[in-house]
Amino acid sequence: MSSKPTSDIFLRLEKTGAKKVALQFPEGLKRKACSFATDLRERGYEVIISGEPCWGACDLDLDLLKDADILIHYGHAPVDSREDVLYEYLRRDIDIEALEEVLPHLTKKEVGLVTTIQHVHQLPEIKEFLKKHGITGLIAKGSERTPYDGQVLGCTFESAKNTGADEILFIGTGVFHPLGVRLATKKRVVAFDPYTKKAEIVDASKLLRQRFARIEKAKEAESFGIIVSKKSGQKRLDIAKRLESLSDKAFIVFIHEVTPDALLNLGFDAYVNTACPRLAYDDQARFPKPMLSPQEFEIVCGVRDWEDYEIDQII
Amino acid sequence: MSSKPTSDIFLRLEKTGAKKVALQFPEGLKRKACSFATDLRERGYEVIISGEPCWGACDLDLDLLKDADILIHYGHAPVDSREDVLYEYLRRDIDIEALEEVLPHLTKKEVGLVTTIQHVHQLPEIKEFLKKHGITGLIAKGSERTPYDGQVLGCTFESAKNTGADEILFIGTGVFHPLGVRLATKKRVVAFDPYTKKAEIVDASKLLRQRFARIEKAKEAESFGIIVSKKSGQKRLDIAKRLESLSDKAFIVFIHEVTPDALLNLGFDAYVNTACPRLAYDDQARFPKPMLSPQEFEIVCGVRDWEDYEIDQII
Repeated sequence: MSSKPTSDIFLRLEKTGAKKVALQFPEGLKRKACSFATDLRERGYEVIISGEPCWGACDLDLDLLKDADILIHYGHAPVDSREDVLYEYLRRDIDIEALEEVLPHLTKKEVGLVTTIQHVHQLPEIKEFLKKHGITGLIAKGSERTPYDGQVLGCTFESAKNTGADEILFIGTGVFHPLGVRLATKKRVVAFDPYTKKAEIVDASKLLRQRFARIEKAKEAESFGIIVSKKSGQKRLDIAKRLESLSDKAFIVFIHEVTPDALLNLGFDAYVNTACPRLAYDDQARFPKPMLSPQEFEIVCGVRDWEDYEIDQII
Repeated sequence: MSSKPTSDIFLRLEKTGAKKVALQFPEGLKRKACSFATDLRERGYEVIISGEPCWGACDLDLDLLKDADILIHYGHAPVDSREDVLYEYLRRDIDIEALEEVLPHLTKKEVGLVTTIQHVHQLPEIKEFLKKHGITGLIAKGSERTPYDGQVLGCTFESAKNTGADEILFIGTGVFHPLGVRLATKKRVVAFDPYTKKAEIVDASKLLRQRFARIEKAKEAESFGIIVSKKSGQKRLDIAKRLESLSDKAFIVFIHEVTPDALLNLGFDAYVNTACPRLAYDDQARFPKPMLSPQEFEIVCGVRDWEDYEIDQII
């Protein structure tokens, strides 16, 4: 599998006329910051580096723009467009022929195609491959947060819903994205991991059982902290205020980095998460108290039925 | 030992005319947030709570003022004065007679008196007590960050320096404040803990040996991250820029909460701390790499001699 940057970042930077450059890298790539900063300094730029934890383009370190002309955000595609932020992410080419593995799992003549940003440029090739095998791949527009056709995020699955297909093929790694596609579309989902070259049918029933148990536990809570993020693309104060109005026991709590210690020290019996949706679904095991999604809190408050369960998305 | 709040916070709040109130508590008191918020809501206020870690009044959660009229900061005295922040801290009365324990340790007829905010209101009584025993207590003004005469912070020891005395009596708990007084004044320091009622002579030689070892280790580093805080009373970008200019291997890194994970992920060989001074002195054992004070980095860069070692203060 080969990887290549999206473009020449030095050329794009030069065009902006910026002299003071701020750099932000996600956790797994942060070690590149020092050598990238050295390169920039040798080209005459002043450089500052963000040391904040960073998990997505919803988490821009805009504070740095007080002391810099432009922010280079590395590793993620834009979820919103800003003139003072340059995004730099990697494309990774997958082995199209390995999709042979998927074919026995597909049951329809039409299949919706979705993937994450690294592979989205290959969706036309994937569609072509399927066509050779008599299957029509449908690639749809998503929301503004997923500007590339067929692109999904861990919190935005609109491009999957918009295909209109009864079966979805997700190409990418990890379990959360395909689970999200499954819950958001309620369709049959086949997930193909281009690294292991394995395909499987996505089953969300275990996750739903776990969520049901958390909802039941949260019904005993005497106090709820409704978490609002300060991050650029995660602040959903309106939703938080609506949820707060559902219960006298609920208070709004602003947190930038949601950590087990922060929740323990605050001492609420349960939390409702309006920040990154994955905090509730993915990180529950790390947290000392139930962490509900907005829709799950609605179930606790009796304004939504379990039968109307929906996955939380930022669209 | 009795404790009482500084004033009626509800009365002070009413006078401001604020309707939307943000609350901030330090870590050890965060659990009070929910009941305080309930009280405020019953009095007709809208309330939001800061879930951020908080270690001092240098760490105001000013972001909350985007969504609130006023911030109540609990547990610390002001380090700067702002119209949109109300400070609420506790006074704790100590047993003055227990200072008998101190008398055998004092060697001078004049002694400088310093303490932390909880006890500062009792300095006149302490002075009176010493006078009865033939000792003149000297209480001096500090800096703007320590508005009460004789007050010290973990990062500001000016009131101790300004007494002009050759011997200082520190009243309070913990080892760091008296060590700071000793290093900042270079005078003989007696520390009296009003809880254990024990007095002792302060010896900073172990801390200095540890710092010397860190400086030696940092001399091997190929890269330095110069940490700049985003916190309201800890951002020292000018100092950071001056330090950056001392070495081609140094880059400025902005961090809000300095954690071991953040430093590990960034991957610098050593760090220089311009945020809360105690991060270098108190928290070194938590960090995976040497964390130097600004003055220690100057020693590494050869622009300061070890003999001119000074403790880092924010004045």
